[in-house]
Amino acid sequence: MIKANNPELSSWIEVPAGSDFPIQNLPFGIFKTKSISPRAATAIGDFVVDLHSLHEYGFFAGIALPKDVFAHATLNYFISLGKETTGAVRERLSELLQSDNAELRDQPEAREKAFYRQAEVEMLLPVKVGDYTDFYSSEQHAFNVGSMFRDPDNALLPNWKHIPVGYHGRASSIVVSGVDIRRPKGQTLEPGADAPTFGPTKRLDFELEMAFITGKATQMGDSISVNEAEDYIFGFSLFNDWSARDVQKWEYVPLGPFLAKNFASSISPWIVTLDALDPFRVPGPKQDPKVLPYLEYSGDKNFDINLEVLIQPENADAKRVSLSNFKYMYWNIAQQLAHHTVNGCNINVGDMYASGTISGPTPDSYGSMLELAWKGTKPVPMPDGTERKFIHDGDTVIMRGFAEKDGVRIGFGEVKTKVLPAT
Amino acid sequence: MIKANNPELSSWIEVPAGSDFPIQNLPFGIFKTKSISPRAATAIGDFVVDLHSLHEYGFFAGIALPKDVFAHATLNYFISLGKETTGAVRERLSELLQSDNAELRDQPEAREKAFYRQAEVEMLLPVKVGDYTDFYSSEQHAFNVGSMFRDPDNALLPNWKHIPVGYHGRASSIVVSGVDIRRPKGQTLEPGADAPTFGPTKRLDFELEMAFITGKATQMGDSISVNEAEDYIFGFSLFNDWSARDVQKWEYVPLGPFLAKNFASSISPWIVTLDALDPFRVPGPKQDPKVLPYLEYSGDKNFDINLEVLIQPENADAKRVSLSNFKYMYWNIAQQLAHHTVNGCNINVGDMYASGTISGPTPDSYGSMLELAWKGTKPVPMPDGTERKFIHDGDTVIMRGFAEKDGVRIGFGEVKTKVLPAT
Repeated sequence: MIKANNPELSSWIEVPAGSDFPIQNLPFGIFKTKSISPRAATAIGDFVVDLHSLHEYGFFAGIALPKDVFAHATLNYFISLGKETTGAVRERLSELLQSDNAELRDQPEAREKAFYRQAEVEMLLPVKVGDYTDFYSSEQHAFNVGSMFRDPDNALLPNWKHIPVGYHGRASSIVVSGVDIRRPKGQTLEPGADAPTFGPTKRLDFELEMAFITGKATQMGDSISVNEAEDYIFGFSLFNDWSARDVQKWEYVPLGPFLAKNFASSISPWIVTLDALDPFRVPGPKQDPKVLPYLEYSGDKNFDINLEVLIQPENADAKRVSLSNFKYMYWNIAQQLAHHTVNGCNINVGDMYASGTISGPTPDSYGSMLELAWKGTKPVPMPDGTERKFIHDGDTVIMRGFAEKDGVRIGFGEVKTKVLPAT
Repeated sequence: MIKANNPELSSWIEVPAGSDFPIQNLPFGIFKTKSISPRAATAIGDFVVDLHSLHEYGFFAGIALPKDVFAHATLNYFISLGKETTGAVRERLSELLQSDNAELRDQPEAREKAFYRQAEVEMLLPVKVGDYTDFYSSEQHAFNVGSMFRDPDNALLPNWKHIPVGYHGRASSIVVSGVDIRRPKGQTLEPGADAPTFGPTKRLDFELEMAFITGKATQMGDSISVNEAEDYIFGFSLFNDWSARDVQKWEYVPLGPFLAKNFASSISPWIVTLDALDPFRVPGPKQDPKVLPYLEYSGDKNFDINLEVLIQPENADAKRVSLSNFKYMYWNIAQQLAHHTVNGCNINVGDMYASGTISGPTPDSYGSMLELAWKGTKPVPMPDGTERKFIHDGDTVIMRGFAEKDGVRIGFGEVKTKVLPAT
């Protein structure tokens, strides 16, 4: 077992009950303040810890780390050092923050310089995303969409249980929690019309997803086997794959979604390491029919991560509209990455791979408004008396996620995004 | 008229008849040699000209250029300086290379340092591609594919004449001419089978395309109008969008091509500027039905660029299998970029936008083997007595392109790629 995951550990930093960031988490992110430039950090309790500052004080002396490794505006360079190194940094942070360790605790000057209240800092995009892939790996979601748009009796397409279906998305428009997005405009075909019209989307939707980030590159022509795949995966963020359903419906045949998706995707700022999530492994669903040999796996490769989505109308309280779980994925991350590279497609450090909408088996666990309000037929009531078929201007969509076991809660924080009206 | 485009100009460098690189072209690329690191260059005749070296000698003294602008391993930084600057560099190069200009001509030391025979250098990928988009903008190609795979009587889908259909592709696997690619493996469904099998693709294909590169970024939420679009376009390369047709057929519903395309795309090393192509503008086809207002354009936005594809079997001469032209595009580059950003999708310097397969109106002008051999029903004979339905291991695929008018030929060089067997 990874030492830093020990549920017995506690920190000399007070971690409030229900915090996403106990000493067992120690995720990585990038922050800045008014006075300091973007740099790497970890989170504990309500604090953000400046890793560059700790490094300057010599707290990572035993680890082979370049001097400026934490002074970059993204984590790509740090992550590229490899899991042995990034894991050693997490283990060292665990050591430094443990209750009985005085090294940092009793150095008020270093603490003063390295610790910030989360509320005081601005969190930035944690990685520069080279390529971004979106999968479609939740069976319930694929079934729901297939039922609504095609045929309830043949909702899953013939390839769905053989292939972790995926497609390429837009990397440039991935933004971090807190960045407002604007309602996109586009072409849509009104029911019964014979020509499209242009205007702001009437069916703006979120998609509740998780995304993993690769930490190791391959050369073109190389493949990653299912068994090796997790060596290439650094960690996870929450991922909101914004979608314009009316635009999507008109444009997506035959080459897939394009403008319906590429206007924005929002992620949570902390990358929770695969290491920290190790205690939360669970078996995946039985895959029937049997998958091809290159997709066969053994061991527990799903993760029990509770997920929720809230909508907060402009001047009202937030309401939870979905309660789902990452464990519902039909295809796991190892299968996704093995499939992605089986043709020799090369990957880079910082590439992002989203799961696809994660819908659970019950209607209150669906991961998009399209499904929750079932194509507009079951509007969802809001605390202010309004109702939602899709997302309104002024709404803020909040996604949160955490795993919990043996009294330890490993959380992701949140991805929170306000929707501005179209220009 | 742009001065450097003047057909009367000639250079003190000898430019062989039929060269792609007369003084009126002056494209940009990145090269290295055994002794010098990657840097920016232009091409004239059979020579590659080291721009960093010229800059060190002070030949660009009148232009506001950072000292290291040409010493980067990609052109992104140079291009990001804006068209006024990059245009001024091209104009200055034109001046320096003109027959009656002695500034560089009569400086043997500077010439010795800056000029290399093309055969002595290795050309590299000219830009770091952030995001790559592939359009589907040739009517004949869309019609051919629709006829073969769907219904000849309704070959074009209802959205095709309203939307410049596009999708996101993989940026990491874009490689430059001369880099071998490996036959990809993947899942396919044999005709009549009820489960897929795995193995090397049996239908490896090229797609003859052109790609433009953006030279100016936008912010998320901004749109580029059709009239502004060309200000954002720096130049063009030839683009071979490698495809595995059997993999594509099985995987592409409903989210579009993925592994069938992302194993490799090959480009020519020189970016020919939009400025250099200005004399070759021609009207595009009449667009009927009328497009939505955001896609309306005026002026000549198509380009008369002759394109050809050759296949060279392992131990035989190359044979030309297609003769097409970029002027056949139904949707032009200004419409493509306006559409791409109409939803607020942000773009970056160095992003790449391929045209989609460029098929002309006659069977010998189709831009893929799928169409040339019509789904395998009309094999194409080769000089060595073999025939091709798709691309064989050991084949080298060569694409070339040039525009020609008033005795001036503006060429792209070539994109030449050998196919290695699957591992």
